[in-house]
Amino acid sequence: MITRQQQQQARQRAKEMICKSGIFLSDQEADAIDVVDFGLSQLEREGLQVVTLVQTERISVKVLALFPNQTEPEHWHPPVGDDPGKEETIRVVGGSMYFYIPGENTFRDGFLVNGKESYYTVRHEIFMRPGDQITLTPGIKHWFQAGREGVVMYSFSTIARDVLDKFTDPDIVRVTRIAEDKQS
Amino acid sequence: MITRQQQQQARQRAKEMICKSGIFLSDQEADAIDVVDFGLSQLEREGLQVVTLVQTERISVKVLALFPNQTEPEHWHPPVGDDPGKEETIRVVGGSMYFYIPGENTFRDGFLVNGKESYYTVRHEIFMRPGDQITLTPGIKHWFQAGREGVVMYSFSTIARDVLDKFTDPDIVRVTRIAEDKQS
Repeated sequence: MITRQQQQQARQRAKEMICKSGIFLSDQEADAIDVVDFGLSQLEREGLQVVTLVQTERISVKVLALFPNQTEPEHWHPPVGDDPGKEETIRVVGGSMYFYIPGENTFRDGFLVNGKESYYTVRHEIFMRPGDQITLTPGIKHWFQAGREGVVMYSFSTIARDVLDKFTDPDIVRVTRIAEDKQS
Repeated sequence: MITRQQQQQARQRAKEMICKSGIFLSDQEADAIDVVDFGLSQLEREGLQVVTLVQTERISVKVLALFPNQTEPEHWHPPVGDDPGKEETIRVVGGSMYFYIPGENTFRDGFLVNGKESYYTVRHEIFMRPGDQITLTPGIKHWFQAGREGVVMYSFSTIARDVLDKFTDPDIVRVTRIAEDKQS
């Protein structure tokens, strides 16, 4: 759960990062930035800011922004009915990040979220900067973590059904609840 | 047919436009910009410059650049086997353009390529600037024309099979031939 105020501040901060990375958003898109805390109520630690640019029955295009050192928890895109699952290409536009996939353990420059070590099981580290991209076939476990300056990236994919994504951490809930802030 | 020199000059010009629009390309991507004259040998009049960022069996992401007043000829994406045809979202990133689809004739600020009027049959005009986007379902005829400052856009789509695209102009050949320039 996050407060309305937290949501608005995170939106504004993500909007500035995205704009600085060279991506132009319409006012409607910026106002609709989705602030995701994964139900963990520690947005700056494990969280994600998302703008959906395209969402059809076949294609999804999103801009993802992570604040400095923010981590998107380990997850994968399972099959859904006749669909083998979401195929996704991530392309970095601004900042840098550590991206983790299955394979040889090359974990070096990122960090594991304190107390959550067992929920980050894939440890093949790939450092990504603007222009770098990676394509994930369905079902591949992955997680990623912004560098010290944060990161902005595109996600180009087949249809996104985020609420059906699977997470290693059993405490995760994909829909973020908003509490009204008493101060505001 | 275009000369090698024309190809290289068009690549460089497109690269500069794309960079100015805020899109970062790797050197390999910039060096591989596809310069397309549609077999008409009048690149500045009817032509297109393309960078392919993602090309899988399910998704295609391209950056398209048109020089000032350059026109992409009318075409559509037909069904291919079990595929209903390419679904495509165009999103403008820099400059402006006139985009034409079926519907009420609202043709006003663009122009028809001289002598080619009968090959531009859809005349519903949509003026597009950065942040504007349009999604085309398969089979919809469309063409577009850069404004005076040129245009840079993303094309997000299901699998692209460009050589199977259908064009209204029967003289069009989708694969551009390169003639070696005797001066070079």
